[in-house]
Amino acid sequence: MTFANVGVLETAPGRRDEVVAVLTRHNPELGAAGCLSYEVGVDDAAPDTVFVTELWESEDAHRASLRLPGVRAAIVEARPLLAGMDGRRFTVVGSPLRD
Amino acid sequence: MTFANVGVLETAPGRRDEVVAVLTRHNPELGAAGCLSYEVGVDDAAPDTVFVTELWESEDAHRASLRLPGVRAAIVEARPLLAGMDGRRFTVVGSPLRD
Repeated sequence: MTFANVGVLETAPGRRDEVVAVLTRHNPELGAAGCLSYEVGVDDAAPDTVFVTELWESEDAHRASLRLPGVRAAIVEARPLLAGMDGRRFTVVGSPLRD
Repeated sequence: MTFANVGVLETAPGRRDEVVAVLTRHNPELGAAGCLSYEVGVDDAAPDTVFVTELWESEDAHRASLRLPGVRAAIVEARPLLAGMDGRRFTVVGSPLRD
C-alpha cells in the first residue's frame, strides 16, 4: 500500500535555504526505489522550517531508500544544518480523487 | 506555486473509519478545482487519527475549494466525528524527483 512520510525539519537559524537545496537536488535513485512523490516546501511564517511530504509505493520501499548512497549523502550533508525533526508516517487508504 | 496542506485529524474514539469514508468518497470537483493530490491515511499506532496530505495548484485553489458544495458537505458530515485538527500548510519549492 502507498506509504506517506510527512516531515517538519527545524533548521539551525538562517540555514533553511541550504537544507532546501540539499533536499531538492535531483536524485534519480528515488523514483527507481519506489518514490511516487517527494515535495519540499517552506512557509514564510516559519523561516527556519523545511517541510517534506513524500509518497512511496510501500513502507518497505521508503525504509530501503534510506540506504541509498544519494539519500545517505543528503542526510549526512543536511544533518549539521538541522536543529530538530518531527513528522508523521501513515498508510494511504484512499483518495477522493479516485473512484 | 504548488501548495501543500497536511492535516492530522483526531477523531472521536472509534470514529476513524467513518471519517476515512467521508474523506475518500469520490469527488470530481476537486480535480477540476486544482487539486493535484489528496491522500487519506491511517497509522495503526494512532487508532483515532486520520491523516491527509494534499497538493494544490495554488494556495488560492485550495482556499476556493473550501467553498465547493461537495467539500462543504464533507466538512459538515465529518465535523461531528472529530475531536481536534492540526496541520501544516506550505508552498512547494522543489523536488528531488524533478531535474
